[in-house]
Amino acid sequence: MTSGLTPPAAGAILNHMVQYSPELDSAFGALADPTRRGILERLGRSDAAISELAEEFEMTLTGVKKHVSVLEAAALVTTEKIGRVRRCRLGPLLLDHEAAWIAAYRRMLEDRLNRLGDFLERTKEDQ
Amino acid sequence: MTSGLTPPAAGAILNHMVQYSPELDSAFGALADPTRRGILERLGRSDAAISELAEEFEMTLTGVKKHVSVLEAAALVTTEKIGRVRRCRLGPLLLDHEAAWIAAYRRMLEDRLNRLGDFLERTKEDQ
Repeated sequence: MTSGLTPPAAGAILNHMVQYSPELDSAFGALADPTRRGILERLGRSDAAISELAEEFEMTLTGVKKHVSVLEAAALVTTEKIGRVRRCRLGPLLLDHEAAWIAAYRRMLEDRLNRLGDFLERTKEDQ
Repeated sequence: MTSGLTPPAAGAILNHMVQYSPELDSAFGALADPTRRGILERLGRSDAAISELAEEFEMTLTGVKKHVSVLEAAALVTTEKIGRVRRCRLGPLLLDHEAAWIAAYRRMLEDRLNRLGDFLERTKEDQ
């Protein structure tokens, strides 16, 4: 099925980044929760122990640990056990690839809307 | 517990966007899967029927429908039933807020690294 709207598109930029990127999977997955985004924002102000996060977010230690381990798996947070206390800080993930993916998606969408506009323009002229 | 690293930070920018945003939850959640990112890239080239997506992604109709409904709930895809065929196209979500959230996070992280650098610098001078 072909339409006047299917030339080779800017999607090629997305194409090779789109599939099979465990980093994108884990980073976007980690950001898909308000508490996890809240923990990142909190750690942006200062490092914190799991117990401090539990108090501030009014959650159980187990609940906080679960969220932190998701963030840790995505390299958004690192933790270190000092004595009996596990301290959390922001991890090394700069979200470069995630920012690039979203930017490419936005360009693609814009491109698609432009092509749709051109198509409608041509259709109008043809009539 | 205070350190020399906890002045009021750029995190304030993130603070109000961070929590309780169902849009961020659903958008990031939708992007956390390689097949769903692949479907978006595919729809960036042209609209497609569910059955076309199933064929191209070598998935069952049920599998594709599940992914499409996650994308649809996030407003990344819209679908329309024309006769017996459900056609999918890119939805209206421009990922503005998601791009802004990631940009704010990156600024916050940079800010935090700078403050850490300043702190280490001062510590060195003190010795």
